[in-house]
Amino acid sequence: MKVGKKDLEELKKKVALGNRIMFYQGLADYHGHVSARIPGTRSFFIKPVLAPLGEIAPKHIISVDIDAYKEVCEQNYAKAGNQRAVTKLKNPPRETMIHAALYAARPDVNSVVHTHQTIATAFSVAGTPILPIYNQAAVFAPETPIFPSPRLIYTVQDGKEICATLGERNAMLLKGHGIVVCGDSLEYATVHAIYLERTAYMQFIASCVGKPTVMPQPEIDYMKQNMMYRSYDAFAYFKSLLPKGARL
Amino acid sequence: MKVGKKDLEELKKKVALGNRIMFYQGLADYHGHVSARIPGTRSFFIKPVLAPLGEIAPKHIISVDIDAYKEVCEQNYAKAGNQRAVTKLKNPPRETMIHAALYAARPDVNSVVHTHQTIATAFSVAGTPILPIYNQAAVFAPETPIFPSPRLIYTVQDGKEICATLGERNAMLLKGHGIVVCGDSLEYATVHAIYLERTAYMQFIASCVGKPTVMPQPEIDYMKQNMMYRSYDAFAYFKSLLPKGARL
Amino acid sequence: MKVGKKDLEELKKKVALGNRIMFYQGLADYHGHVSARIPGTRSFFIKPVLAPLGEIAPKHIISVDIDAYKEVCEQNYAKAGNQRAVTKLKNPPRETMIHAALYAARPDVNSVVHTHQTIATAFSVAGTPILPIYNQAAVFAPETPIFPSPRLIYTVQDGKEICATLGERNAMLLKGHGIVVCGDSLEYATVHAIYLERTAYMQFIASCVGKPTVMPQPEIDYMKQNMMYRSYDAFAYFKSLLPKGARL
Amino acid sequence: MKVGKKDLEELKKKVALGNRIMFYQGLADYHGHVSARIPGTRSFFIKPVLAPLGEIAPKHIISVDIDAYKEVCEQNYAKAGNQRAVTKLKNPPRETMIHAALYAARPDVNSVVHTHQTIATAFSVAGTPILPIYNQAAVFAPETPIFPSPRLIYTVQDGKEICATLGERNAMLLKGHGIVVCGDSLEYATVHAIYLERTAYMQFIASCVGKPTVMPQPEIDYMKQNMMYRSYDAFAYFKSLLPKGARL
Repeated sequence: MKVGKKDLEELKKKVALGNRIMFYQGLADYHGHVSARIPGTRSFFIKPVLAPLGEIAPKHIISVDIDAYKEVCEQNYAKAGNQRAVTKLKNPPRETMIHAALYAARPDVNSVVHTHQTIATAFSVAGTPILPIYNQAAVFAPETPIFPSPRLIYTVQDGKEICATLGERNAMLLKGHGIVVCGDSLEYATVHAIYLERTAYMQFIASCVGKPTVMPQPEIDYMKQNMMYRSYDAFAYFKSLLPKGARL
Repeated sequence: MKVGKKDLEELKKKVALGNRIMFYQGLADYHGHVSARIPGTRSFFIKPVLAPLGEIAPKHIISVDIDAYKEVCEQNYAKAGNQRAVTKLKNPPRETMIHAALYAARPDVNSVVHTHQTIATAFSVAGTPILPIYNQAAVFAPETPIFPSPRLIYTVQDGKEICATLGERNAMLLKGHGIVVCGDSLEYATVHAIYLERTAYMQFIASCVGKPTVMPQPEIDYMKQNMMYRSYDAFAYFKSLLPKGARL
Repeated sequence: MKVGKKDLEELKKKVALGNRIMFYQGLADYHGHVSARIPGTRSFFIKPVLAPLGEIAPKHIISVDIDAYKEVCEQNYAKAGNQRAVTKLKNPPRETMIHAALYAARPDVNSVVHTHQTIATAFSVAGTPILPIYNQAAVFAPETPIFPSPRLIYTVQDGKEICATLGERNAMLLKGHGIVVCGDSLEYATVHAIYLERTAYMQFIASCVGKPTVMPQPEIDYMKQNMMYRSYDAFAYFKSLLPKGARL
Repeated sequence: MKVGKKDLEELKKKVALGNRIMFYQGLADYHGHVSARIPGTRSFFIKPVLAPLGEIAPKHIISVDIDAYKEVCEQNYAKAGNQRAVTKLKNPPRETMIHAALYAARPDVNSVVHTHQTIATAFSVAGTPILPIYNQAAVFAPETPIFPSPRLIYTVQDGKEICATLGERNAMLLKGHGIVVCGDSLEYATVHAIYLERTAYMQFIASCVGKPTVMPQPEIDYMKQNMMYRSYDAFAYFKSLLPKGARL
């Protein structure tokens, strides 16, 4: 597959939009990042370290080579160092390893989202997995695994461990830290990060008024497949909610 | 009853407004739909498939013949098919059967609302019916039935089954899926879909701080009757909350 | 005490502001009303029936004579009758008796607020009184009584019964219906209706994470006195939050 | 350390910004205050009594001498006295002693925040400490102490008692009253007051869906150190969220 310059520009724009959507959905601040694999390569596009997600434009997007990054991951982490000032680096995020490790381990994954979104992260604190309780949550079946440590993910070893926890699933909680959602398209990963938070909210309410029940397996299977396609509608919808000044 | 062209235009506008109100109340996104029976016919007006509810204008409204739809319901469902792109169809929603079946089974019903509204749907996940706990919830007495499956409703058989679950009531939960509210007017169905969510929120709080109690039967009976009239005030109020740019 | 025309205009404006503040705090819609006694008289100012509270201007304010109203209360109630249309009456609210009865029974009361505010009403549904759990809730000590019926309050007998439930307190829940708050000034009644909802929210959270404790009596006594004065600061603050287009 | 006039102006501006940020985060109204020590002195900058935090400008900032204030603290408290009118004093807040006492007792503290923020205060009502449950909450380890009384803090003795409760920690709940957060910089204290509320919300959710677990000690130690630096990024981020008209 050959990717032209115009395709790359479109992809950068989509990565910027994904970051903005997570911000305007109230699910990310200056932490967290949305990335996308550059088709046919071992590289991906990602936003810079600590930059607020709502302001990301295509020109800010950084290209990261998976294999080269593994060599420099610890130095990259250290660059956002101990200064009593605002970080002005243009480096990749300190936890870029979340993305590099997943793209390396999972050829089916073309986009990764990491956030500290509040309700899903609160479930991680409680050690309670998020369940496939309604149609838009089918993708989380049989349940979201929980990575057991809040530590920041930046070494090659960290990357290996989160991949082992995630396995073949598409969403995972990081205990006392945040969440990771991935998928075959940026649209899929972004909208499922949004649906993960909505599902967590619904599961919280359901836990307070009764006992949450998971969907039957046939409906889970059907909706999992269905969301491969419906994610494009969902992404277009969430994009349409961006305030006028924030559209690209 | 003869319905003139002007009446039809007014009705289309009201259907568009009902959709917009559900959106601006935060109860619907690109899923869900508000419809109204065309008086004196076996047809109804409904929004198109997957179009965000906040943007529906009278010109988008589709007329659906109840009997003809039963013949084509499965093809209609299939049209919003498996494409990795935004759906641009102008067909009726995939779940138009929710509406067709209810208008056929319930001559007293002139409007139907289906949404995935968060809190009421969370009650469905918990298997907990929503109760007539305060005046604006009298219509939900004795409690909202719960359709037991999250499956999408599109076949004639699906339609029969939801009608059997609903019976003579005006609101129902679809487990792991969403809600259906109907009534003798679009005003009634729309405002009760809003009050259903508010009731669910109040019942959730009441469950956390004590035990929710239902209203005495005489007050339920009085308020059920009263809401036939007060729904017009309520609808006018919710319409007045639409942002300036979104009014029709 | 003689009240000049200018004072009356100022009072009408303050009543309008009280209604608007309750709307913009998200605590009232087209139900509920804020009123104030006209000093030195047996009359009070109140908004018209079913008019959205956010739009009330001084010119809409109605003067109601307490004694005369008792004669006409049931006719007034009936006027917002059974029409399938928006109520366009300029009559006092159907539940004006809440106000008339309290002004008659409680010479210390110069303002009354009635709303259906969500969280406090949810407490009424649960049968759980709201408690003096923090400084701004001292006024609710020893706890808010709960009127046991959701029925609408419009007869002389209804009025007597709610006064009996309230006694000498300043806030009461109406089970499955709403709340009543009163006080020696419109500022006091309005801000305590706001604090009642905030207290309910805090008591809800506290109930979920532990057991709410009430304040010690000396601090309750001190704060109750203190709020006679601090209510003016609080009212000025909530007034400052009105959007520019909604200020008077 | 010598502090020039320009540095003082910058610090006043930062104190004003801290107050505004707390307001626009929805964590303070006309109660509460953000202060900062004037470097190399026994004085600090603070906003005036009862002024809404969202409107504080550098010109409103008051300089308070720690030692002199102890002499006048009770008179200062009495100045916001018993008037049925809006307080127009330009005095320091009635509870300035919270700040004076902490700056005197804790040379490491350069900024203090006091608010009545809703969820954290609800935890105080329940007697439930806020725990280090996720990375941005490490600073609250091992848990927030709870000062046992809701009384207003204005005497020298009050000041001593809250310092004894706080000890060497950086955040404390005041039962039935509010919270205090302090730190080595205004950035640190402000962002941790925000994170305290977010942590309380997450701990509430976690308590409803399971049992909140605290972070392991090594991650707590690492993040505590890390936040000395990351607070500058966080503060810049929250500052960027101020609406255009509210920036300084």
